[in-house]
Amino acid sequence: MQSYTVSELLSQDIAFNEVEIKGWVRTFRANRFIALNDGSTINNIQCVVDFEKFDEDLLKRITTGAAIHIIGDLVESQGKGQSVEIQVKSLEILGDSDPDTYPIQPKKHSFEFLRENAHLRTRTNTFSAVMRLRSALSFAIHKYFNEHGFYYMHAPIITGSDAEGAGEMFKVTSLDHNNLPTNGNGKVDYSKDFFGKETNLTVSGQLEAETYAMSLGKVYTFGPTFRAENSNTSRHLAEFWMIEPEVAFMDLAGNMDLAEDFMKYVIKHILDNNSEDLEFLDRRQQDEDKRKPQAERNGMTLIDKLKFVTDNHFKRVSYTEAIDILRNCKPNKKKKFKYLINEWGTDLQSEHERFLVEKHFKCPVILFDYPANIKAFYMRLNEDGKTVRAMDILFPGIGEIVGGAQREERLEVLKEKMAAIDIPEEELWWYLDLRKFGTAVHSGFGLGFERLVMFVTGMNNIRDVIPYPRTPQNAEF
Amino acid sequence: MQSYTVSELLSQDIAFNEVEIKGWVRTFRANRFIALNDGSTINNIQCVVDFEKFDEDLLKRITTGAAIHIIGDLVESQGKGQSVEIQVKSLEILGDSDPDTYPIQPKKHSFEFLRENAHLRTRTNTFSAVMRLRSALSFAIHKYFNEHGFYYMHAPIITGSDAEGAGEMFKVTSLDHNNLPTNGNGKVDYSKDFFGKETNLTVSGQLEAETYAMSLGKVYTFGPTFRAENSNTSRHLAEFWMIEPEVAFMDLAGNMDLAEDFMKYVIKHILDNNSEDLEFLDRRQQDEDKRKPQAERNGMTLIDKLKFVTDNHFKRVSYTEAIDILRNCKPNKKKKFKYLINEWGTDLQSEHERFLVEKHFKCPVILFDYPANIKAFYMRLNEDGKTVRAMDILFPGIGEIVGGAQREERLEVLKEKMAAIDIPEEELWWYLDLRKFGTAVHSGFGLGFERLVMFVTGMNNIRDVIPYPRTPQNAEF
Repeated sequence: MQSYTVSELLSQDIAFNEVEIKGWVRTFRANRFIALNDGSTINNIQCVVDFEKFDEDLLKRITTGAAIHIIGDLVESQGKGQSVEIQVKSLEILGDSDPDTYPIQPKKHSFEFLRENAHLRTRTNTFSAVMRLRSALSFAIHKYFNEHGFYYMHAPIITGSDAEGAGEMFKVTSLDHNNLPTNGNGKVDYSKDFFGKETNLTVSGQLEAETYAMSLGKVYTFGPTFRAENSNTSRHLAEFWMIEPEVAFMDLAGNMDLAEDFMKYVIKHILDNNSEDLEFLDRRQQDEDKRKPQAERNGMTLIDKLKFVTDNHFKRVSYTEAIDILRNCKPNKKKKFKYLINEWGTDLQSEHERFLVEKHFKCPVILFDYPANIKAFYMRLNEDGKTVRAMDILFPGIGEIVGGAQREERLEVLKEKMAAIDIPEEELWWYLDLRKFGTAVHSGFGLGFERLVMFVTGMNNIRDVIPYPRTPQNAEF
Repeated sequence: MQSYTVSELLSQDIAFNEVEIKGWVRTFRANRFIALNDGSTINNIQCVVDFEKFDEDLLKRITTGAAIHIIGDLVESQGKGQSVEIQVKSLEILGDSDPDTYPIQPKKHSFEFLRENAHLRTRTNTFSAVMRLRSALSFAIHKYFNEHGFYYMHAPIITGSDAEGAGEMFKVTSLDHNNLPTNGNGKVDYSKDFFGKETNLTVSGQLEAETYAMSLGKVYTFGPTFRAENSNTSRHLAEFWMIEPEVAFMDLAGNMDLAEDFMKYVIKHILDNNSEDLEFLDRRQQDEDKRKPQAERNGMTLIDKLKFVTDNHFKRVSYTEAIDILRNCKPNKKKKFKYLINEWGTDLQSEHERFLVEKHFKCPVILFDYPANIKAFYMRLNEDGKTVRAMDILFPGIGEIVGGAQREERLEVLKEKMAAIDIPEEELWWYLDLRKFGTAVHSGFGLGFERLVMFVTGMNNIRDVIPYPRTPQNAEF
C-alpha cells in the first residue's frame, strides 16, 4: 500500500488499489462523504464512509479542519464531479478541529476576517490557489532567467546607503531604544551601533545589481524591499518582493524586448501549468463581477486578461506621443479623467495608463523616453537634454507593472545629476566607480512581485497576495 | 553578423564566422593578445589584434578592466589553451580603465582588499566563479522543491514576534531616533511607530512556514534572516539567507530522508552543470593547500568532498551513540580535542562533528534525538522525556550544515515547553492554533545558504560567498 497526495490520486491512473492518504477535512456531508484536501491541489478527493461500519463517536470527530488518516480502495466514482473516490476502510483522527471554535468554516468569509486569520487562510480554496500561483510565478521567474544566462544575485537587505531616494526607509539598529548613546551634540551616536553607522532597510537592489551586471553580464535580484510610507491602500505594502534584472551592453530597446519576453514567459508558464487554480480564480472573479454594478466589473475575464498579455505585441509609444493621445482623447476633453492631462511633463496616473492599454491601443503598452524630472537620477539622459531613457510597461486593469531604464553610464553626467539632487559623491563612490572603470551601456527594470501576483490571480487587495502583509499598524504573525 | 557571449563562442561550433562581442579586458599582452571576459563563463576568449593595423593611441587604451566592443572572425586558435579565437577587424573602447587607479589588476589580491572593493571583486576569476555557483545553487534548490511538489513561501522579514529566541534581533523602526516619543513611564511609545508596536528583523521563517505546511502540505522558505550578534568570525554574518522546508504528515525519519535527498540533489546539480567554475576553484584550493603546513591542508580536494556527499549514504546515528563513540575515541582520551567529551547532555563542537564524519564513519552523518535542553522549544519531545526529535547533518570540513526536527504537535506539551522558558501564549497564539485545529505530525529543517556555498566553493570566509556581507562595523555598499 502506498501513500499519495490528493493531486497524485486525482491525476494518475491508479484506480482499484488500496491507498493511504492524510489530509484535512473540508466538508463531511450526509455522514458519508468526506471532501479531503492536503494542499497539493485545489481539488478535494471524495472519501466515502460507510457509517454503519464506524463508531458514531469517531464520525462526530470528522469535522471541518480535522486532520485525518485514511486507508481505503481507490475506485471509479459513482457521483458527479470527480473521476475517482476512496472507499474508506480505516479512518484515524490525527488532530481534531472543534467546530464551535475553528474559525474557517465551510462558508464565505470576508477577506478582512481572513487577514486577521492569515495563519489559517490558506485552508480556503481562494488563498490556497493564490499562494500556489505565487509559488509557481516565483519558479517561472527563476526558470526564465536561468534559461537566458542570467545569474541570481542577492542584494543586501540592510544598507548603509540612503541615497537612492526611492522612498522613506525603515531604520535598523541594535541599540537599546530606551537607552540610546549620544554624542557631543546630543544626537544619537551611531558609531556605537552594530554597523558603526546609521543603517536602513533597502528600497531597491538595483544599484548593487548594476555592480554585478558590470562583471557577470546578466544578473537579476529577487528579494524583499521596504517602504516606510504611511500608505494605507490596497496597492501598497511596507514589505514587498521585487525582481530587478540588470544587463551590461543592453540599451533601452533591448530592455523593452527583454521585459516583454520575460512577462510573456512567466504568464504563459502559469497558463500552461496552473490551469486548475487559475480556472478556479477565473470563475471566482466572474461570480464576484455578477454582483457588482456594470461599471465596476472587470472588462475581461482573468484568463482573457492573461492571454491579452501573451497573445499581443507590446506597443512601444514615446511619452510625448502618449501625452498627445491623452490630451486629445474623449475622456480628457469631456473631463472624465480624475486628473486631466494638459501639458507635457506631467506624470501619468493609472486611469491614463489603463485608457492607453484598454481603449486606445487595445494591447499592452511600453511607454518610453519620459521627462527627466519625473524619473530617477540614474536614468540615461537623452540628447534632447530633457527626457531620459526610461520605460514603463502598462497592463490592463492595473496600469504600470514594470518600470525600467537604460542607466546613465557617463561619469560626468551622472555626477551632475547627483549634485542637482544633493547626493554626495562619497555616498555612492562605488556606484561612480562603475563609470570610472570599464563603463558601458547597461539597462534593467524592476517588477513588483506582488503586483504581478495580483494581476495573475485577479485579487484586488495586495494584502491578499503575500502570506503575512506588513502595512501601517500591522505586523501580526 | 551576430552578437555572442564568450560562453556561446567557446562552447558552440560556430567557427569561421564574423562575430561581434562586448566585454572587459582581463589582460592584453604583447600588444597583440586580448583576454576578453564578459562574465558568462570563467574562461576568456582570446582576441588577436594585428597592432600594425590599429592606432597606437587606441592600443594604449586596451587596459585591464576596459570595456570594449570587438568585431572579428572566429577562427580555430593557433595557440594553446583555447579552441577558438577572434581575429579582430574592428575594436571600439566603450569605457576606459585607467591602469594607475583601477584597483583590480591582473595579479593576486588579498581577499581583505577585495572585500573593501566588493563592488569590483566579481571581476576576478575566483569571485565570479563563487557568485556563479551561488546562483546555480539557488536555482538547484528551487528546482528540487518544484520537482518534489513543494510550494515556495515568502516568510515575513519584519516581525512583530521575538518569541523564537534563535538569537539577538535587530530592531526596525520608522521613528526619529533623535526624537523618540515616550509614554508615561519614560519608555519609548511604540504605539506611535509605523506598525504600532515594537518590530524586529526575522531570525527564521520556520514558525510561519509551519502555518503554510499545515494547509499546503509541503512548503519551503528561501529568504534573508538576521542575527544582531557581535560575532566577528569567518563563519558568522548579521544578514544571511536560509532555506527552510516544512512538511505536514512527515516524521523525523522522513525528514532525514528528505534532507539527504535534497543535499545530494543540489550538489549533484553543481557537479553536473558547473564543472568549469568548480574545477577552477578545485585547482585554486589545491594551490593554496600546497603553501600550507600539512596539518592545515584540506584532507580532500574540493570535488572529492562534493562526491563524498553525493556518493555516500548518510549514516544515521543517535546523539547517545555519538557521545559513546566520542567519549571513547583516541582524540578524546589523548585530550587532543579542545573541548573534551565527558558526559551525556553536552553540545557537540565542530571538531567532534568532523571527527565522526571524517575519521570514524567516513561518510556524512545525521545525528538525531538530541537532549531536549540544548535544542529549541518547538521540537517534538520523545517518550523518554529527555530527548527531542532533532537532527543535525554533519559534513566533512565544516561539521553541522543542516539542523532540523520533527515539531511538537501536541498542544499541551508545547504549552508546557513555552511556559518553561517564559514565552507568553499570547505571543504565539497563531502558532498554538496549528495544534488546536487539525494538528498533525510535521517536520522540517533549516540550511544556512552561505554555509552551503562555502562548502561547494571551498571558500573559508563566509564574507566571501555573499555579495555584500553585513558584519559588526560593516554595512558598506
